[in-house]
Amino acid sequence: MDLITISRYFDDLKVGDRFESDRFLVTEEAIVEFANQFDPQGFHLDPTAAGGTIFGGLTASGWHTAAITMRLFVQTLNFAKGVIGLGVDELRWPAPVRPGDVLRVETEILKLRRSKSKPQFGIVKFRYTTRNQSNKIVQRMFASGLVRVRDN
Amino acid sequence: MDLITISRYFDDLKVGDRFESDRFLVTEEAIVEFANQFDPQGFHLDPTAAGGTIFGGLTASGWHTAAITMRLFVQTLNFAKGVIGLGVDELRWPAPVRPGDVLRVETEILKLRRSKSKPQFGIVKFRYTTRNQSNKIVQRMFASGLVRVRDN
Repeated sequence: MDLITISRYFDDLKVGDRFESDRFLVTEEAIVEFANQFDPQGFHLDPTAAGGTIFGGLTASGWHTAAITMRLFVQTLNFAKGVIGLGVDELRWPAPVRPGDVLRVETEILKLRRSKSKPQFGIVKFRYTTRNQSNKIVQRMFASGLVRVRDN
Repeated sequence: MDLITISRYFDDLKVGDRFESDRFLVTEEAIVEFANQFDPQGFHLDPTAAGGTIFGGLTASGWHTAAITMRLFVQTLNFAKGVIGLGVDELRWPAPVRPGDVLRVETEILKLRRSKSKPQFGIVKFRYTTRNQSNKIVQRMFASGLVRVRDN
């Protein structure tokens, strides 16, 4: 089995399975670029202005952290024909992400059931925990998605 | 009062207030660029491959829709010294976003209370509804954030 190119189906998952992602470096440049496009606020845009805020320095938009979490999850699980997001619950950012942080995501399988309306799909409930290089949790989230069942 | 440069404080909000954002065009180029960075899956990356999926064509990552919603919200409310996200609940994507869609966001103030631990801030609970040019809802979400109280 080639671990590089394996792609997963619903059938391959068990409740309780955990997957650890690769690491992802968050640069100051990337923080500012994302904020310019999607969250143009001083504490995400300008290191000097950010020094005088509650964060005491530049921090990433929570939506940037969420997007990085998605990238790491997609790359790690590598579902055959993708995973279609149904919804997200309890998305929290307990600590800020700062320039130079290295993030990784742990994904746990919480629930599995076949879709009745779309028999070629299963519905998966995931728990995501995103940590920085100091093992501090920077994001927690629950989400559900549709994943393909292996063809018979 | 200059409506262009007005910036809002906690004190300016009332429960039930609603704010309508500007409009935002989602291009195919932007959908593919976001997906390449954060959600590299066929139905977000490749119009041809996307035609054979459940969506029948290219769609934006839900995280792209969420990021655009943040941008429109930040620009519309324009909080003095920004709004700090505390968390998100019930983020849903009931319909896909496709190339050429024009999105807008309605923000409603659901709850307001002063922070006990950070007296210069108030805690605001928001409801966000993101619609396309056909008035179809493409995202719903609840979120809470810290907003500055006006200095006395």
